[in-house]
Order: sequence, then structure tokens, then C-alpha cells
Amino acid sequence: MVGSLIYIFLTQMVHVIGSAPGEPIHPEVRKFCSSGPKWNITLTAEEARLPIIYVVTPTYRRPEMVAELTRLGQTLTMVKRIHWLVAEDSPACSPVIASLLHRLGLPFTHLATPMPEVYRRERYVPRGVSNRRAALQWVKEEGHDHGVLFFLDDDNAIDVRLFEEMRHTKTVSMWPVGLIGDYTVSSPVVRDGKVVSFYDGWPAGRKFQVDMAGFAVGVGYIKKQKRPTMPYIAGYEEDGFLKSLNLTLKDIEVRANGCTEVLVWHTRTAKNPTRAIRLPPDKHTHDNIRGLVENMKHMGMIK
Amino acid sequence: MVGSLIYIFLTQMVHVIGSAPGEPIHPEVRKFCSSGPKWNITLTAEEARLPIIYVVTPTYRRPEMVAELTRLGQTLTMVKRIHWLVAEDSPACSPVIASLLHRLGLPFTHLATPMPEVYRRERYVPRGVSNRRAALQWVKEEGHDHGVLFFLDDDNAIDVRLFEEMRHTKTVSMWPVGLIGDYTVSSPVVRDGKVVSFYDGWPAGRKFQVDMAGFAVGVGYIKKQKRPTMPYIAGYEEDGFLKSLNLTLKDIEVRANGCTEVLVWHTRTAKNPTRAIRLPPDKHTHDNIRGLVENMKHMGMIK
Repeated sequence: MVGSLIYIFLTQMVHVIGSAPGEPIHPEVRKFCSSGPKWNITLTAEEARLPIIYVVTPTYRRPEMVAELTRLGQTLTMVKRIHWLVAEDSPACSPVIASLLHRLGLPFTHLATPMPEVYRRERYVPRGVSNRRAALQWVKEEGHDHGVLFFLDDDNAIDVRLFEEMRHTKTVSMWPVGLIGDYTVSSPVVRDGKVVSFYDGWPAGRKFQVDMAGFAVGVGYIKKQKRPTMPYIAGYEEDGFLKSLNLTLKDIEVRANGCTEVLVWHTRTAKNPTRAIRLPPDKHTHDNIRGLVENMKHMGMIK
Repeated sequence: MVGSLIYIFLTQMVHVIGSAPGEPIHPEVRKFCSSGPKWNITLTAEEARLPIIYVVTPTYRRPEMVAELTRLGQTLTMVKRIHWLVAEDSPACSPVIASLLHRLGLPFTHLATPMPEVYRRERYVPRGVSNRRAALQWVKEEGHDHGVLFFLDDDNAIDVRLFEEMRHTKTVSMWPVGLIGDYTVSSPVVRDGKVVSFYDGWPAGRKFQVDMAGFAVGVGYIKKQKRPTMPYIAGYEEDGFLKSLNLTLKDIEVRANGCTEVLVWHTRTAKNPTRAIRLPPDKHTHDNIRGLVENMKHMGMIK
């Protein structure tokens, strides 16, 4: 705890010398790779009036990547009027994700947004920040004013009913997230229909004690802010982002039956080691295994 | 390795004294709870001709249970002509799963199939066996002859295209499963369109070195067998089951582009501790947190 306070202090000092806390002191590279259809052909008039939900998912190459994105992407195809922004922590967009996105058939934007090298050396790596910052920029420039921004990690689990809860967010809407820390949940505390504080096992000096999957933001509201941003400070991404929106507790829109229902979970998938598989030259020359191993390399499952 | 061989030898000896290896020496309790609609109302004539896929998912109460079943169940609603058998390792069916099943709207059967206590004390607990045995019995009695049986754990990830690969299985169809053991995959080795052996990091004396999610079986084929069964021997469930079907390698139907594509992954979700949350009597009496904690108890997320 003391260690992490010292860490935060030092990190913030470094940034204060450069600019605002958590603002990058090294350049960020953002590569736009491709975008899918903006409209479903079968969009009804009623659907066309629905605000678009921009779902932002940071990801990175590892054995589980394709499994996670397949599972999550399939879920998103069940949701009306969604736009999926997949941002890879990589200097280039991977063909396997590109083909997955095209196959799913939902509107998407595919980005390559590598973390500046300096952050990889920090004690607590602010993973996913460069990705979300890039997506935030995209949404500010391309998003519909009546749309909604939602951050959803590739290994989280979501009940599709949550999308309708967040659909009409004007400022920031919030709800509980399951499987977080010491309380097994992180939730706003709601009294008389208003958020008054947070029920979260890791306060850590945060004004907004929420998980990344615990809120959505109106795109028009983001655009009205002077300097919406997400800091490169591990553990403080949500808090920093919501503070940059000049949000106050009384602006928060309460969802999920007064924040009593859990419709999204911070599940984490067990990691598998990334192996290099080299078949002996005299083995598997006349069967399927070489083709399978090639496919697994392509998917990032092995080196 | 030697330890597990000794374990297997001893386990098998115990069973040999009683009956066949891995056959239960203690009674199994099977409780049928409820069944959902057998037919979608909007079933087209073409759909009605499709073989039903009976997906068997064993589950048990833990903090991640509802997240996993929500995620998997939503995926299954994307698949035509499916019947989901959810079998709980519990003496009674939980209301939270019942309402989830009713809400999803897919044809289902809900069972309570607790593991006989004697197996909980074994060194390697044969988890999910009582559940799958019960589902197997249900499918033998109620399943359509041209239907297909498929075992899919609640934390696995599946590309929905795999369901069409397995749809027309007559005997047993097979394909690779990703994220398994030392090779990051388990797959049949296919030569000239036929399975000749297996590529799997844990041979362990098994004839069929496959994962539970790596095969599907024709219901008619199961019904033709004298004594289809799954043994209570951890690590040998698949092998024992396929042996009980009198399967030979040349009977196996090869899928997933000659077993070169990965369309299902043995993902595992990180476990969260099951906590007891007792709110102080003077706290949270006028807000949402008591209601939220009650809901979490109902979902099995906390004690």
C-alpha cells in the first residue's frame, strides 16, 4: 500500500514536470487500419433512431486473444446499433483480428495503438491506456453526438441487457460490476435515486471508485468538455478519465434497477504460456499438424 | 506422473472390485427440474429438418457461475436448433439458473445432478462426471436419433461456426481444441482424411487423447451401443466414454478443415474467493447496497 502510494507520487511527479499528471511525455503512435459498414442494410426506421453504442476494447497478442475476441464479438452481434472499436497494443493491426471483424459483420473500427515504450518499464504498467486514448480521440472526431461510449475489456462477461440500460446515457451512467476486489463487487452507493458515494474495496484516494466496465458516457457530453483524457496511471485510469469530464456525483445517471443488479462481470481468463512449437523435420510431413501449427501462429496462440 | 499412475491404478482397482472401472459404487441422485420450449415458434420448415444439437454443460455454484452461464447461454441463442442441458453439481436446481434459462428463450433442460460424496474425497476429483452421466441418460431417453450430443464447459470459448461443423455427425466427429497443455492444442492427427493418432501433450495411456470439447456424437449411434457410459476417473472421462461407444479410429468423422482450424478453446476463468459479506447493522440501511448484496447471494457470488 505504501509502496503503491510512493509509486503514484513518483509517477505523478514525473508527469507534473512534463505536463499534466498521467499525460504522455512520449509520442503516441495511432494507426487506423480499417472500418466496417456503418449501417446494417436491414436497419429499420426504429433502429436508425437508436443512439449508437461505441464499445471500446483494448487487446494484445497472447494465446487467448482470438478466443476472447471471438467470444465477445459474437455477443456484440446480438446488440442493435453497436460500433466496435478494437485497438491493439501493437505497432500494426493483425490480419487475424481484421478477418474476425469482417466475418462478424458488425460495424467496427480497427486500430493499432501501441503503448509508448516508456510505460512498459513502469512497475504497474498502465495497460490499455494508449488504446483507449486513441479510441476516445476517434469517438470525439467521428462519433454521433447522441451516441454512447463504453469500455469493455476482451475477457469481461456481459449480460446483453446492459446495453439497453446504457443506450440513452446523456452524461455518465453507472451500475455495479461483479467480481471486483475484496467486496466481490464495485458499485455506486445510491440514495434517493442519486449517487452519494461508492462501495468498493479499494478506495485508493479515488473520487470515482469504479471499474472500467462500470460506466458509459454520452458522446455529446464528452465533446462539450475542454480536455477529456485518460491518464497513464495504473489503477487510476477510470478516476482520471471521469475527473477530466468535470463530472460531479449528482450528474451521474443511475442504472441497473437503482444499482442493485449485476449485469457485467470483471472476469479474467487464466493465462497460458506463449510457446514456440517447432516440429521435428521428419515428423508430421504428411498430415494436418503442420497446417494446424501454422494457423495457431497466425492466431497468436504460439510464437 | 508416477503418483498419478499409482492413483489411477488404485482408483481402478477399487472400481474393479465393485464393478467396471470408473462405474459408480455409490448411488447417483438425478433430479429433473424443468424443461424449456422444444420448438421455436418461428421455426422454418428448413430449420425443422436440421438435427438438434444437445449441448451438455455441467456447472456448480461459485462466484463466476452466473457470469459464465450468461456469456455461454447468450452465444447458444445464436445457434439454430439447439437444446441446452444444464446440469448442476448440487442437490437442487438453483432459481437463478432457472430464471436465466427461461429468459434466454432457447430450448433447455435443467437438472440437479450432485456428485456422489465419495468422489469429492478423491485426490483428483472427477468433476462434471455425474452431471454428464445424467445428461447422457436424458439424451438416450429423450434425444432424437438424428440429433448430436456435445459437451461444452461453462468457461470454454467457442466460435459459433463449430456448431455447423458438428451438425451432421453420424458416429463421432472430431476437431482441434485450443489452449490445452504443453502443445497449446489437442488435435487428431489426420492422414488421407482419416484419424490415425493424436497430437496431445498428455498421452497418459489414453486411446483417445481428446478434450471434452473436441468431439460430438450422433445420438442414434449412442443408442445403438450396449453400455455407453462415462467413468468417474479424473483425466480419463473422454477416453472412457469414447471407448464405451466401441469407437475405432477409422469411424471418426474429421471436421474443421481436416483438423487444421481451431474453433473452440479450453479457456479457464480465474477463480474468485467465495466471501461472506455481512454489512454492519447501522450501515447501508437507506441505500441500494443491501439489495445488491442480496442479489449477489442469490447469484452465488457471495455466501
